[in-house]
Amino acid sequence: MQTLSEHRAFNGTQRFLQHDSAAIGLPMRFGLYLPPQPKALLVFLAGLTCTEETFAIKAGAQRLAAELGLALLTPDTSPRGANVAGEADSWDFGVGAGFYLDATREPWAKHWRMESYLLNDLLPLVQHETGLDRVGLFGHSMGGHGALTLALRHPGRFQSLSAFAPIAAPMRCPWGRKAFGGYLGEDRAAWAAHDASELMRIQRAAPYPGGILIDQGLADKFLAEQLHPEAFEAACAAAGQPLTLRRHAGYDHGYYFIASFVDDHLRHHASQLT
Amino acid sequence: MQTLSEHRAFNGTQRFLQHDSAAIGLPMRFGLYLPPQPKALLVFLAGLTCTEETFAIKAGAQRLAAELGLALLTPDTSPRGANVAGEADSWDFGVGAGFYLDATREPWAKHWRMESYLLNDLLPLVQHETGLDRVGLFGHSMGGHGALTLALRHPGRFQSLSAFAPIAAPMRCPWGRKAFGGYLGEDRAAWAAHDASELMRIQRAAPYPGGILIDQGLADKFLAEQLHPEAFEAACAAAGQPLTLRRHAGYDHGYYFIASFVDDHLRHHASQLT
Repeated sequence: MQTLSEHRAFNGTQRFLQHDSAAIGLPMRFGLYLPPQPKALLVFLAGLTCTEETFAIKAGAQRLAAELGLALLTPDTSPRGANVAGEADSWDFGVGAGFYLDATREPWAKHWRMESYLLNDLLPLVQHETGLDRVGLFGHSMGGHGALTLALRHPGRFQSLSAFAPIAAPMRCPWGRKAFGGYLGEDRAAWAAHDASELMRIQRAAPYPGGILIDQGLADKFLAEQLHPEAFEAACAAAGQPLTLRRHAGYDHGYYFIASFVDDHLRHHASQLT
Repeated sequence: MQTLSEHRAFNGTQRFLQHDSAAIGLPMRFGLYLPPQPKALLVFLAGLTCTEETFAIKAGAQRLAAELGLALLTPDTSPRGANVAGEADSWDFGVGAGFYLDATREPWAKHWRMESYLLNDLLPLVQHETGLDRVGLFGHSMGGHGALTLALRHPGRFQSLSAFAPIAAPMRCPWGRKAFGGYLGEDRAAWAAHDASELMRIQRAAPYPGGILIDQGLADKFLAEQLHPEAFEAACAAAGQPLTLRRHAGYDHGYYFIASFVDDHLRHHASQLT
C-alpha cells in the first residue's frame, strides 16, 4: 500500500493511496479520511466519471466525520490502465463506470471486477489497517446503485445504508441497460441480481431494520429517465423495509446537492455504527 | 450579466456568472453564493492557477455562510482570452496569476487590471444586484496577498479582513518579485505599494481595529521561501494593528487546510459585518 498524498484535515488526515488488487489485476487508488478518533468505517461509492478524489474534494464531509469519529473510504469507480479496446469511448461505460459489479462478458470480465475488488480486496485491507469492525455504505448515482445493491447482495457485511440520487432500478433505465448488457450480456436474471429494486422486492424481512436514507433532488436532470427512486420505494414498502426518501425541490444531481445533505447521512450512519 | 450555471445549495443558490469588464476589456467570470437571507457580502480571492470555481467547490464554506447570512463572491484570478504572447507559459505569472493589481508594464497593462476590475466593476455590480452594503475580504496565498493589499490600499471599502497562507511580503519572495517585475517593472516604490507588509508598516493607526485573522499551516511547502507571515506580523505590531496569526502544525497549503479553518474565518467576518 503506497501513499500518494497526505493532507491534514480537521485534526485528522486525508490520504490517497494505491495498492495492487488481486481481483482486478491492476493497481487501484482510493481515498481514506481518518478522523482523530476513528470509531467506524463509512464507504462512499462515487458516480460516473468520478475518481477516488471526487467526494473527498467536493462533499465537505470531513468536518462532521471528524466530530463523529467516522473514517471515510472512497474507492475509485473502475479499473484504470487495463487498455481494453474502447474502454474510454463512453463516459457511462468502461473507465469511470464500473457499476460495482463483476463483469462476466468479454473483454471486460478479466479486469472489471469492482464487486470482488471492494468486498475481497479493499475492505479487508482497510479494516485490517484501521482495526475498524463496523462498516456503513453509501454512494451517489451509479455509486448509489452500488451501495444499495452491494448492501443487499452481502447481508451482514454492512451495518448501515444510504444513497444520494441512486440509479435505483437500473434494468428500467438507459444507463443500467447499457452497463448490464455490456458487462453481463443479455441474461435478465443476471441483471436482476444487480438491480436494487429487484433485490429489495424479493426480501422476506427488512434487511436494514434501522432504515435506509435516500435523498433525491427534484431538479435533477437524470431523475425521470435514469433514477426511478419510486421503484425502490415501492419495493421497500413491499418488503417492509423502512425507507426515508426525501425529495428536495430545486436541487440538482451534483455535489452542491450532496454537500447540502451529507451531514444528515453521516448522522444516519453514525447512529447505527457507533 | 449572464448566468453560466446555477445550483441549489444549503437552501441558497451557488451561481457562476459572466459579465463584460470595462476595466479589463474582456468577459470575466465569477461565482456567487447567495444564502437564504443575505446580510453581508464576503469576497474570497483565490490563489495561483485557481478559478472562480475553486473555493466554491473545495472549501465547504456554503454551509455556515447559509447559516450566518454571508453571500460569497469568488472572482477569477486573472483575465482569460487576452491572447498576450507568453500569457500561459508560467503557472505563477499571466493567466491564473493576476496578483490583484493593475499592471503598468507592456504587454500586460491593457488587460491585467485586476484591482480596477474588482473595485470598479465587480464589487459595484454585485453590491447593486444584491443590495448588500457591508463587505468583508479574504483570500488564499496569492489571494491572501490580494486581500491584505486591497484592504489596505482602499480604506473604508472593506469592513473585515482575513487570509489563509498569504504571500505576506511579496517583495521578499520569488513569486512576488517575478509578478511585480513583470507587471510593474523595476520601480521599487511601485512594488511597495502592493506589498502587504510594506503597506502595514506605514499605517499610523490600526486600519482594521476589529482585528485581522491569518491561518498558516506549518507543513506548507511554500512557507519558508514564499509567504513570510512573520514580516506581516512585525508590521502589524509596529502599526498597532491587532492580528491573530495562527500557526497550525501538520497543515499544508491546499484546500483541505482551508476547509479545516474556513468556519472560523466566516465567523470572524460575520461578527464584524452582520
